[in-house]
Amino acid sequence: MTLDVDDLLARLTLEEKAALTSGSSFWYTAPVERLGIPAIMVSDGPHGLRAQPGVGDHVGIGGSLPATCFPTASALASTWNPSTLRRVGEALAREARASNVSVVLGPGVNMKRSPLCGRNFEYFSEDPHLAGVLATAMVTGIQSLGVGTSLKHFAANNQETDRLRVDARVDERTLREIYLPAFEKVVTSAQPWTVMCAYNKVNGLSASANPWLLTTVLREDWGFEGVVVSDWGAVYDRVPALLAGLDLEMPPALGRSPEAVVTAVRDGGLDESVLDDRVARVLRLVSRATEAAGAGETFDLDAHHALARAAAAESVVLLTNNGSLPLDPSARVALVGELARTPRFQGAGSSQVNPTRVDSVLDAAREVLGEVAFAPGYPLEDRPTADADGAALLDEARAVVRDADVAVVVVGLPASHESEGFDRTHLDLPREQLEALRAVAEEAGSTATPVVVVLVNGSVVRVDEVLPHASALVEAWLGGQAAGSGLLDVLTGRVDPSGRLAETMPLRLEDDPSFLNFPGDSQVVTYGEGRYIGYRGYDKADRQVAFPFGFGLSYTDFELSDLVVGTTGAVEDDDLAATVAVRVTNTGQRAGATVVQCYVADPEASVDREVRTLQGFAKVTLEPGASEVVEIVLDQRAFSWWSVQLDRWVVEAGRFVVAVGQHSRDLALTAEVHVDAPRVAPPLTRDSTLHEWLADPLGRELVTAAVAGGEPGAAMDDELLPVVGTMPMSTLANFGGLSLGHDALDAVAAEWTARH
Amino acid sequence: MTLDVDDLLARLTLEEKAALTSGSSFWYTAPVERLGIPAIMVSDGPHGLRAQPGVGDHVGIGGSLPATCFPTASALASTWNPSTLRRVGEALAREARASNVSVVLGPGVNMKRSPLCGRNFEYFSEDPHLAGVLATAMVTGIQSLGVGTSLKHFAANNQETDRLRVDARVDERTLREIYLPAFEKVVTSAQPWTVMCAYNKVNGLSASANPWLLTTVLREDWGFEGVVVSDWGAVYDRVPALLAGLDLEMPPALGRSPEAVVTAVRDGGLDESVLDDRVARVLRLVSRATEAAGAGETFDLDAHHALARAAAAESVVLLTNNGSLPLDPSARVALVGELARTPRFQGAGSSQVNPTRVDSVLDAAREVLGEVAFAPGYPLEDRPTADADGAALLDEARAVVRDADVAVVVVGLPASHESEGFDRTHLDLPREQLEALRAVAEEAGSTATPVVVVLVNGSVVRVDEVLPHASALVEAWLGGQAAGSGLLDVLTGRVDPSGRLAETMPLRLEDDPSFLNFPGDSQVVTYGEGRYIGYRGYDKADRQVAFPFGFGLSYTDFELSDLVVGTTGAVEDDDLAATVAVRVTNTGQRAGATVVQCYVADPEASVDREVRTLQGFAKVTLEPGASEVVEIVLDQRAFSWWSVQLDRWVVEAGRFVVAVGQHSRDLALTAEVHVDAPRVAPPLTRDSTLHEWLADPLGRELVTAAVAGGEPGAAMDDELLPVVGTMPMSTLANFGGLSLGHDALDAVAAEWTARH
Repeated sequence: MTLDVDDLLARLTLEEKAALTSGSSFWYTAPVERLGIPAIMVSDGPHGLRAQPGVGDHVGIGGSLPATCFPTASALASTWNPSTLRRVGEALAREARASNVSVVLGPGVNMKRSPLCGRNFEYFSEDPHLAGVLATAMVTGIQSLGVGTSLKHFAANNQETDRLRVDARVDERTLREIYLPAFEKVVTSAQPWTVMCAYNKVNGLSASANPWLLTTVLREDWGFEGVVVSDWGAVYDRVPALLAGLDLEMPPALGRSPEAVVTAVRDGGLDESVLDDRVARVLRLVSRATEAAGAGETFDLDAHHALARAAAAESVVLLTNNGSLPLDPSARVALVGELARTPRFQGAGSSQVNPTRVDSVLDAAREVLGEVAFAPGYPLEDRPTADADGAALLDEARAVVRDADVAVVVVGLPASHESEGFDRTHLDLPREQLEALRAVAEEAGSTATPVVVVLVNGSVVRVDEVLPHASALVEAWLGGQAAGSGLLDVLTGRVDPSGRLAETMPLRLEDDPSFLNFPGDSQVVTYGEGRYIGYRGYDKADRQVAFPFGFGLSYTDFELSDLVVGTTGAVEDDDLAATVAVRVTNTGQRAGATVVQCYVADPEASVDREVRTLQGFAKVTLEPGASEVVEIVLDQRAFSWWSVQLDRWVVEAGRFVVAVGQHSRDLALTAEVHVDAPRVAPPLTRDSTLHEWLADPLGRELVTAAVAGGEPGAAMDDELLPVVGTMPMSTLANFGGLSLGHDALDAVAAEWTARH
Repeated sequence: MTLDVDDLLARLTLEEKAALTSGSSFWYTAPVERLGIPAIMVSDGPHGLRAQPGVGDHVGIGGSLPATCFPTASALASTWNPSTLRRVGEALAREARASNVSVVLGPGVNMKRSPLCGRNFEYFSEDPHLAGVLATAMVTGIQSLGVGTSLKHFAANNQETDRLRVDARVDERTLREIYLPAFEKVVTSAQPWTVMCAYNKVNGLSASANPWLLTTVLREDWGFEGVVVSDWGAVYDRVPALLAGLDLEMPPALGRSPEAVVTAVRDGGLDESVLDDRVARVLRLVSRATEAAGAGETFDLDAHHALARAAAAESVVLLTNNGSLPLDPSARVALVGELARTPRFQGAGSSQVNPTRVDSVLDAAREVLGEVAFAPGYPLEDRPTADADGAALLDEARAVVRDADVAVVVVGLPASHESEGFDRTHLDLPREQLEALRAVAEEAGSTATPVVVVLVNGSVVRVDEVLPHASALVEAWLGGQAAGSGLLDVLTGRVDPSGRLAETMPLRLEDDPSFLNFPGDSQVVTYGEGRYIGYRGYDKADRQVAFPFGFGLSYTDFELSDLVVGTTGAVEDDDLAATVAVRVTNTGQRAGATVVQCYVADPEASVDREVRTLQGFAKVTLEPGASEVVEIVLDQRAFSWWSVQLDRWVVEAGRFVVAVGQHSRDLALTAEVHVDAPRVAPPLTRDSTLHEWLADPLGRELVTAAVAGGEPGAAMDDELLPVVGTMPMSTLANFGGLSLGHDALDAVAAEWTARH
């Protein structure tokens, strides 16, 4: 059913229009039965549907229909594989259709500014390019089957602490280069049906009432065509929000919001044409949703579980391996860790799925390996254990390891450590878990039994106390309902570990670039590290990390060679592009996959720039001995920075370095690219500095000629130039220090302008 | 001669008034001969007078009358001795009087935000308390003899890069707690005759036209009674500057400024009463200056040189010492380093003094020690030396060391590395100097000859390549014209080294908290590290440093004991104070001096606070075996933080920790102080969060009672509370998730307000 939006707009009363710009209940838009406008249902669920047909529980967190719980975004991002994201998206769409859900409220592409953010498990990466490409794939997958998405949380929602009130103070270049590009990529590439505005303020204005965000950037700069919906409860002032560009308030402030809108139109504070615009967008959303809706559709539970398993396996990042992985099929395995039996496979809050089934690590291990000795080793509750109980758990763990050929210890974060709603305050694993690991390692050490350590967590943990005990270290993230079986696929070698870190693992929290400014207080957080989040900061400060961005091992080896970089197009035509070709060879003994990563550096920039940034990547699967040339295309943006002075992206002429490798600190292959581009510096004026005039060829010529006409100026003196060179010419004219008075200076400036 | 300001104001023409608010030439105020108003002369010179009678050289940097060059501020601050600063101030005043200078343009109390700032040698410290106390002593000393000062550069002038245009973006709490307190201390304790506004912008407005800085903070909050003068050329828009609170523009934009002011008054853009206010201040300055002026005064050159020598010796910081210092009087000394012969003892720019004489290290060494073998070891020019020349220098250095009992190697920064006008880009010593040091160390190593390394520099250098070669490491700073003899006093043990670092020596530039944000670009610098400059940042991030803030060794040992802390007064009366008493004992074999340092921590604060901050100190000189109880008084400010929400300083009730020791990372003695204080949190409203309501006893009571009257609210559920607790009550009322609708919530909020 297609709605005739223009016709409906003409027939709707003011009250009905106002009502349409808020929902009718927690998960439904407002219907207008009189005109045949139906309500459509939306539902949480970036990694699995959380459909709550009916009224919900009033805060929207309680029980929901069973649905496949796919790996969380942290895990999915580690695949570095857009195809996987797309397949998961398609599966989500099938499940949504089966539940009559028209819009899935995800994915979330906020940057991982700090590893402490409680909701990091719902976000992809510390890198906007990686997040943008992966989220685009997921949105494309979902929307390809006629289900909408809600790209969230727009914008700068990078912490849970005081998230409804906190004012994120971020300079524009940082927003444009770090916090917005993932949104921009998805909007410009995939046109999500909706974008969800964040709870927080951005530079003083609530995201829901921020015209710069919702109109200037989203609509005008990026051409967004869909509906802007509020995060649930993110509208604090109804009419300014609507004016700023918010189309749909969710959930409704029933009895308040529609009346406020009606009154504003009647009082003249809101032009009805603005309201019409918002209503038209909502109607177009309802129309496309009802057009696409099916009836009585179902989906294949087993196939979706299998997909969840494949995605979980592909998410696993092998961090260290002294050869104990993959497991010897004949080895006697001892499995230690309550998390292996009582799995944590997703995070708490609005993304929490009621899974169709759950593969624990323990069940999966027994299914794949047969007999497996198990001991919990530690309690999962956060309460301190009685010493006696703790000792008994440790004894039991030592005992199962004693007769094993290999110990697998699963440790990680309990649910109480990370969740929507609050942030972590440290990166530590629970003390009891480290004690269990030490006990196992001690026992295993006496018989040289390898200890494989598996981490289960939504965001990075500190591993310096883990590494000395681990023969192999595996990051399994929160891998969804098939996390256990997916993990076993990797541990046994059925699947080569091809996950790569989408976030840096620091040595210590204090090393993180955001450390001094997270999470702020007094309702303000200052993004003091600017663009230097994650690897950008670690690389700039040349700081050691536990494992760098992009890192991950395979069971086989890959070699990169034969880097060739060519460019096409031109900056002035806005179509500069570089094609990066590199040969990848599987030089090991097993089939496997790796991620070719391409970083760009701009060493000649006139402004501060990162050491390097990820601008392209490609995942390659190869049989042993096989070889393939991978091609990565870098667009003009890969060479650009945001000029606040010019209010646009710019590329500066000069030398760029393209570096290719298998992680951010393993970039052996580099090539230089020389780019021509128009002048970026602001024009010279009387207020430009002496240095600026002398640095410009024509400027130098004009100033020198003018000075030569008079007395030799003291400011041109070699010794004085460093001291006074940063002074504007107009200031020096006051001094009389350069033989260029105000009038002569005006003449020189006019001449420069005329000849430019 | 006293001027009758009111009478003069009534008789001055508008044009004369306008002229009086600018100077008449580079170093002179405007006279009005018709009315007997003289011009007074001002002069650069925070550590020595740079009087340029007459017209100057038009940029004010050229030759000046001979004057005693005292140690630069970096060095003087290392004395941690207000008495020394006061004595130097008095000497400066005597020299000023002898040159008919009425106002000395200093001291500078900008914070050392980054070790790269080219002008750090002119500033005291990275700590506002230390800078404020020392500058107060200097200002008091100068002004006690009827010469004025100009406290500069107000404010946030913490770099040279683009210093005339750069916009320093600093949040208010950081300004109030870090960048303003040294100014505040001097203004409120010593009323400098003038305050000099900075070149740069602060949060978007030029310091010279910034009403918040010049009027709200300086006049209204601090009660400044003197004249605000512009830095030379810092006025970019004359009338807004005058309106903002600038009294005197220097130097004059002749033919432009007075006319602009006159026109503005005639056009009604400037109320003449505002101009009268500025003129009155200038006249009062002229009046007090002419009242105080003498005629034909002289000063004792030798006495001032001796004071410069004592101050230089007291500035020296002994960083490491394996026993090779003090020098054995009978030892054969080899002195290496061109800087020992061609001394660098002050910085370049407006503070550069034409010294009355200069003691090089080499001359001083020969005077004190008799025969001293010398080799330059390295060239001082920054040009690369021809390999052959370099090799010859190294050979010569090795040769002099061969026959010595001890080698003293002087290394440091060439003049081209640091100056007013530009910033450093790295912390490294020149390569040639490190090569010379390595050559000496290698030669000395073969005979176990100790190598004493002396650093000469205006701001810290990287010492990781120096330390392995140094038997003792001495930081001598830029110690003024008697730096050489002062240094020898310490090396020989005539003076015990009592200098302590007033700035942290980091291991690497990249470790510095400001690293990611210094010096900015595109005319903007963001103070992203906030309050965490210097040791505040290193301590917060628990980062290793080469030598911590406050560090310095003596030739003797001191023990602290018997810490007793008592409080008086009350926060609500604004007179809380703590008296810190501690016994200091010289447990070594020599007389010497140490600095007792007192730091305060606020571990229970509701907002982010530093690990600890310096709030008091005292220098103590003791004979061997002697003991003394030192008393340090902490005022209420020592316990305060600036609340942006409340727009005032606040002290929160709770436990504070007072820690006492001999440097910032040696604080063995601690005491707890329990402070009572009124509530600081904002009042509860309908927009306060659920967590905030439940954290307040009355709030919890009211909400619980209101909820109990209805259905049990889902939001009060134990599992949901962490997720929704940060939501404002008004948002939850929209949700219906807490059984407290909007009307009930309004009633509860009203009740709370009524009972508070």
